Amino acid sequence: MGWGDLGAFGEPSKETPNLDQMASEGMVFLDFYTANPLCSPSRAALLTGRLPIRNGFYTTNAHARNAYTPQDIVGGIPDSELLLPELLKKAGYVNKIIGKWHLGHRPQFHPLKHGFDEWFGSPNCHFGPFDNRALPNIPVYRDWEMIGRYYEDFKIDLKTGEANLTQIYLQEALDFISKQQASQQPFFLYWAIDATHAPVYASKHFLGTSRRGLYGDAVREIDDSIGKILKHLQKLGISENTFVFFTSDNGAALISAPKQGGSNGCFLCGKQTTFEGGMREPAIAWWPGHIPAGGVSHQLGNVMDLFTTSLSLAGLQPPSDRQIDGIDLLPAILQGKLIDRPIFYYRGNEMMAVRVGLYKAHYWTWSNSWEEYSKGIDFCPGQNVSGVTTHTQEEHTTLPLLFHLGRDPGEKYPLSFACDEYQRAMEQISVVVQQHKETVVPGVPQLNVCDKAVMNWSPPGCEKLGKCLKPPKSDPKKCFWPH
Amino acid sequence: MGWGDLGAFGEPSKETPNLDQMASEGMVFLDFYTANPLCSPSRAALLTGRLPIRNGFYTTNAHARNAYTPQDIVGGIPDSELLLPELLKKAGYVNKIIGKWHLGHRPQFHPLKHGFDEWFGSPNCHFGPFDNRALPNIPVYRDWEMIGRYYEDFKIDLKTGEANLTQIYLQEALDFISKQQASQQPFFLYWAIDATHAPVYASKHFLGTSRRGLYGDAVREIDDSIGKILKHLQKLGISENTFVFFTSDNGAALISAPKQGGSNGCFLCGKQTTFEGGMREPAIAWWPGHIPAGGVSHQLGNVMDLFTTSLSLAGLQPPSDRQIDGIDLLPAILQGKLIDRPIFYYRGNEMMAVRVGLYKAHYWTWSNSWEEYSKGIDFCPGQNVSGVTTHTQEEHTTLPLLFHLGRDPGEKYPLSFACDEYQRAMEQISVVVQQHKETVVPGVPQLNVCDKAVMNWSPPGCEKLGKCLKPPKSDPKKCFWPH
Repeated sequence: MGWGDLGAFGEPSKETPNLDQMASEGMVFLDFYTANPLCSPSRAALLTGRLPIRNGFYTTNAHARNAYTPQDIVGGIPDSELLLPELLKKAGYVNKIIGKWHLGHRPQFHPLKHGFDEWFGSPNCHFGPFDNRALPNIPVYRDWEMIGRYYEDFKIDLKTGEANLTQIYLQEALDFISKQQASQQPFFLYWAIDATHAPVYASKHFLGTSRRGLYGDAVREIDDSIGKILKHLQKLGISENTFVFFTSDNGAALISAPKQGGSNGCFLCGKQTTFEGGMREPAIAWWPGHIPAGGVSHQLGNVMDLFTTSLSLAGLQPPSDRQIDGIDLLPAILQGKLIDRPIFYYRGNEMMAVRVGLYKAHYWTWSNSWEEYSKGIDFCPGQNVSGVTTHTQEEHTTLPLLFHLGRDPGEKYPLSFACDEYQRAMEQISVVVQQHKETVVPGVPQLNVCDKAVMNWSPPGCEKLGKCLKPPKSDPKKCFWPH
Repeated sequence: MGWGDLGAFGEPSKETPNLDQMASEGMVFLDFYTANPLCSPSRAALLTGRLPIRNGFYTTNAHARNAYTPQDIVGGIPDSELLLPELLKKAGYVNKIIGKWHLGHRPQFHPLKHGFDEWFGSPNCHFGPFDNRALPNIPVYRDWEMIGRYYEDFKIDLKTGEANLTQIYLQEALDFISKQQASQQPFFLYWAIDATHAPVYASKHFLGTSRRGLYGDAVREIDDSIGKILKHLQKLGISENTFVFFTSDNGAALISAPKQGGSNGCFLCGKQTTFEGGMREPAIAWWPGHIPAGGVSHQLGNVMDLFTTSLSLAGLQPPSDRQIDGIDLLPAILQGKLIDRPIFYYRGNEMMAVRVGLYKAHYWTWSNSWEEYSKGIDFCPGQNVSGVTTHTQEEHTTLPLLFHLGRDPGEKYPLSFACDEYQRAMEQISVVVQQHKETVVPGVPQLNVCDKAVMNWSPPGCEKLGKCLKPPKSDPKKCFWPH
C-alpha cells in the first residue's frame, strides 16, 4: 500500500473508514518511512531494527539494485541477527507471524527458528500459478510444516481476482488474540498479510465494491479486517493494554497501476525507488487510553523504530552489541516530542538519499534503466522530473540534489546549488552522512546467489500431503537484479 | 487553493486544523468542481449559477482560451444576468462581498449594482506595485467608493511577503456578522479573499510559521481566519442558523510552485487546465445541528450549485427564464442522496471534457503552447502523460480520451478505445454531451476587448483622496489570451 491509499491521507475515494477511524482515535505519522523500497529488506529491517545494509538484506551483484527473496534465493536472515520476537520472548511474549515472512525460505531461515512461536502464512510472494516442474507453487505453512500450496489448496483466481486469503489471515489473527487473552499471556502479533501485492485479490464479499477497482477492493478488505481486529481487542477488554501500529513495507507499486497499483498521494514515483513515493509510508499508532485521539506527528519515523519501540513497550533494552538504527518512538507518541534523527534511503548497497529535518539530499538518482523503461516498465508513470527521475544511475555525491519537502513534497524543484539555503542545509547534512557512513559495516550480502534447487520443492510437511516435488540439480548463480 | 492544500485532503504537512475540524464537524465533498479553471469565470459562475459560456465570462478571440478580468478589460457581468445577492434580497437578505469581485471594474459592473449591499475589497487581482503611469494600482473599495490603492494604502511587501489584507478581510467579516446578528437580519456573506493568489502574502503573525513556505503561511492564515469566523458564529449563537460552505475558485496554480503555488494532491496539472488538478476543488459544507458531523459525499458538485443551494436555503426558486446549471445540493447534504448530473469542463469557448459518474471524457486536451512551455510556463510541472498533457490543442471529439477517475484519479491511463467499458461509457456520455450542447446558447462574450483607458485610473471616490489619475486615450483592442 502507498501513503495515499488511505482516506485519512487524501485518497479521493475515501474508502478506508476503519483505518481513518484508527487514525482519528490514535496518532498519525505523516513523515514515516520504510528502510527500503522493497518488501524483503523492509521486513528484515522492521524485525531487526537495522538497515538492510547491516542485516544482509541487499545485494552486491550490481550497484544500487533492489533485491528480495524470490524462491530461488539462497540467502535469508542470518542467525547472527537478533529478531524482535527473539528478544520479546525474554519478557514472556508469545509471538506469531501471520502472512508473508519473506526473510528466506530454506530451513535455517524458518521464522520459528528466529523467535516466532507460531506461523500461518507463506515464505514468499503469492506469485503463480506455477506448473510444479520449472517452478513449484508457494507453500503455506502452519508453524513448522506446510499445509498446502497457493493456487492448489489456497485458491487465487487470477481471472476474477477472487481469493479468500485475507479472510483466512484475519481469522487467524482473531483466534490468536482470543487465545492469548484467555491464557493471559502477553503477545506480539505480526500481521503481515500479502494483499495488496500483485497479483491483487479480494474475497467475494469485497470484489467489485470499490470505486478504485480490484486494488481498491483489496484495500477495503484490509481496512475492514483492521477494523475487526481493533474491535476484537476492545471486545476482549485488552485494547488499553495493546499497542497497535499500522504501516506498509514500501510505497504503492505504480508499475501495476491502475488496475493493481495504488496511490502514493502527491509524492514522486513509487515502489522500487528512493523518491518519497517509494519509501514514505502511511503510519498510525493506536493505543486507547494512552495515545491521545486525533494526534498528528511529524516525527521522522522508520519501520525499524517498531523494533526499538516494541522492546521499550515490553520493558526491554535493544541489543548493545550492534548498531541499531531504530529509535524508541514512545516519547513522540506519548509526549508529542520530536526526536532529531535522519532518514537514510538505501537501494541495495547504496545510500541514495538522506533526509535531515525537512531537507532531502539525493546522492544518487535512478528510476530504472532505459532498457527496462523502453519495455514499458515505469516506476514513475506520468511523472518526469528532469534530472531527478533519471533512467541512468546519476551520481550527485559531490553536489547532491537538495529538496525542501515542506514546500516541495513532490521532489520537483531542486534547490539552486548557489543559494545560501543549499549551503547551510548541506553543511548539516554532510556531517550526518559522514557520521552514518562511519558506522556502516556491511553485513554479508544475502541476496547475491540464486539456485533453482533451493526453491520450495519439498518443504517440511510435504510428505504428509503428498506434495513433495523433486528439485533440480544444484546450480548456484549470481542472481540478476535489473533495477 | 488546490484540492490537496488541506490536511483533511491529504496535504502532508497537515497545517489546516480549523478547516480539518470544519470538515469533521460538517460534510466533505470529494468530487466538487469549479466551472472554469480560472478566477473570474469561476466567480461569475458561482454568483449566476450558470456556466461562463452562458453568462458571458469567456472569450472568442481564440479557441479554448482562459480569459479573466485584468484591469484593461472592457467587459464585465452583464445586467441581464441575475446574481445570487439580487435574488436573496427578495427574501430580505443583506448581502456583502468581502475581497475580490473580479466581475468587471467599470461603473456598470459594480457589485452594489448587482445585488450586494456592501463591499469591502478590490475589483481585480492584487498585482503590482504599478507606477500609476502605464498602469494604475488596484483600488480597494468600501461600498460605492474607493478608499485607497493596493501597495499605496494597503501595503503588500513583495520582498518579505508581508501584508495584512487577510486580517482586514477577517475583521470585516466578523464585524458584518455581528452587525447582522444584532439587527436580526438574514445575511449572505461572500468572503472572497485574495490569498492565496500570487503574489502570495501573509500577515506578520503567520510569516515563517509554515513548513510549506510563504504559500503555507497564507494557507495557515486563511485556515485560522475560517476558524475564527466559525467560532464567531457559534459565540453569537447563530451557527445552527447559518450555512457555511468552503471552496476554491480553481486548482492550485502550479506555475507559481514551489514558493507561491499549492497542491492539487494526486490530481493532474493545475490552474488553467481542465485536468482534475485545475478544476477539482476542496469543498466543505458546515451547518451544525443540520449537517451530520463527519459526513463525506461523492455527489458531483460544482460552484454553480452554491447559487441554487443558497436560493433553496432562503426558500427561493431559481429563475425559470434561463438555463441554470447549478443544482440544489441540499438533498445530498441533508439526506445523503446522490443526484445524477454531469460536470462540464470548459476552457473559454470550448467544452474540453465531461464527467459522468466516475468516467471523464476529454474531447479536447491542452496544457499550454510549446511556445509558452519553452519559456518555462508549465501548468503541469513534473507531470507528463503522453497524449494527454499535450502542448498543442488536440481534438478528440470523434474518439474522446476516457478515464476512470476511481481507478485512475490522476488521469494517467486512458481506457482502450476497443474495450467494452469504453464503448458502454461513451454511449452514455455522448447522450449527455449532445443534450448539453443543445441547451448552450452562448452569451455575448465579455472578455474579448481590452482598452488601457478603462483601467482603474479614476474610480469613484478617487477625488476625495486625491488619487485620481489621468486615463490614456481610448484604444480598444482584442485582448490577447495566450493559453
